[in-house]
Amino acid sequence: MAHISTEHEVLAAVFQVRPGRPPATSRKPALHVLLWERALDPEKGRWALPGGHLGPDEDLTSSVRRQLAEKVDLRELAHLEQLAVFSDPDRVPGPRTIASTFLGLVPSPATPELPPDTRWHPVSELPAMAFDHGPMVEHAHNRLVAKLSYTNIGFALAPSEFALSTLRDIYSAALGHPVDATNLQRVLERRRVITRTGTTARSGRSGGRPAALYRFTDSRYRVTDEFAALRPPG
Amino acid sequence: MAHISTEHEVLAAVFQVRPGRPPATSRKPALHVLLWERALDPEKGRWALPGGHLGPDEDLTSSVRRQLAEKVDLRELAHLEQLAVFSDPDRVPGPRTIASTFLGLVPSPATPELPPDTRWHPVSELPAMAFDHGPMVEHAHNRLVAKLSYTNIGFALAPSEFALSTLRDIYSAALGHPVDATNLQRVLERRRVITRTGTTARSGRSGGRPAALYRFTDSRYRVTDEFAALRPPG
Repeated sequence: MAHISTEHEVLAAVFQVRPGRPPATSRKPALHVLLWERALDPEKGRWALPGGHLGPDEDLTSSVRRQLAEKVDLRELAHLEQLAVFSDPDRVPGPRTIASTFLGLVPSPATPELPPDTRWHPVSELPAMAFDHGPMVEHAHNRLVAKLSYTNIGFALAPSEFALSTLRDIYSAALGHPVDATNLQRVLERRRVITRTGTTARSGRSGGRPAALYRFTDSRYRVTDEFAALRPPG
Repeated sequence: MAHISTEHEVLAAVFQVRPGRPPATSRKPALHVLLWERALDPEKGRWALPGGHLGPDEDLTSSVRRQLAEKVDLRELAHLEQLAVFSDPDRVPGPRTIASTFLGLVPSPATPELPPDTRWHPVSELPAMAFDHGPMVEHAHNRLVAKLSYTNIGFALAPSEFALSTLRDIYSAALGHPVDATNLQRVLERRRVITRTGTTARSGRSGGRPAALYRFTDSRYRVTDEFAALRPPG
């Protein structure tokens, strides 16, 4: 078979847990994804993931970092990893373009400055999306949900120190369903994913007890599953 | 930045647990990877992962299936999934070529017929490898080891029914270190990864008790981690 040439783009699904927007009936924190509005055809007015074409002298990770830097301050990104490749021959009009997708996470409550064409959208209420970027967000969200269950990836969504009620809100938002704070604490402490700082914060509720503060034990991504039978000896 | 065109190839690290080769001092099962010997320059005589260039009308998964079919009967593949993209601008000589890698698993004791240029090599004793295919095997092996700890992926390396001693040999070979059969049984039964068939097999040792037979509960890939606090309610 003849060798064909294709174009290659990198696209990032960058997530953050943020308060619901003011007009919403609830200000409950929700998982948001960073999107920009296309000003030109094709798909003018639709919303797209940040990213763009691979340059001649860069690999995929350098490329996505360069292109994300145009949208957000990279120091705000606590985690960035390669996800799936989208390679359907007809996924975009024009020359065949293969897309490598990335997962990026911004801790709350950071408030990165955004360019005027760019906005956070709740994952549960995506606007009209360009090309195959809707399925890309869904795929990245599914990977995030899975990784929350067997890794410490929550560190990249949480503040550096937090009360358990804050962590519960972050996990609930990222997973898309309610999580019990006591169960969450039990599981994450048993796996040494979170550690008590020894300090407390005043509860937001008047008269409430001061809440114990926690932090993630590691701020480097790792599999946390306690499958001790499979660890190397010693 | 100008849009550049690149070529795109798909490459598969296909693993199987197989007995050590006869001249080896031990016939202990070891993890092997499927490689073919390059007959032409560049890198003539070095060993490479099966795969090749993406065709004009296929996506990555169709392409890797088509190209693997030239090396091994696809019905023998119990698992195939996309792994990382290797995109260093200078990874191969000639036109820039981006490589998407895949992980493939063949259960033991299948003995696929191989073309004459193709052979199973122990992962611990790789021959001189072409291009960046050595690091690709290492990366795929690392992913396999991680996935053994939080998924049921072992089903794709094991026979349909097996004694625990067989499963222990398969896990030990894939992980690269000894595993205790009793611990393995405890963990995998607790997570409902394996189930007793209710039948037994005669032990290989003379006078040994007949060994209970097991099977994998599911033969579809899933995360098995018991992180119940994070499951959707109901």
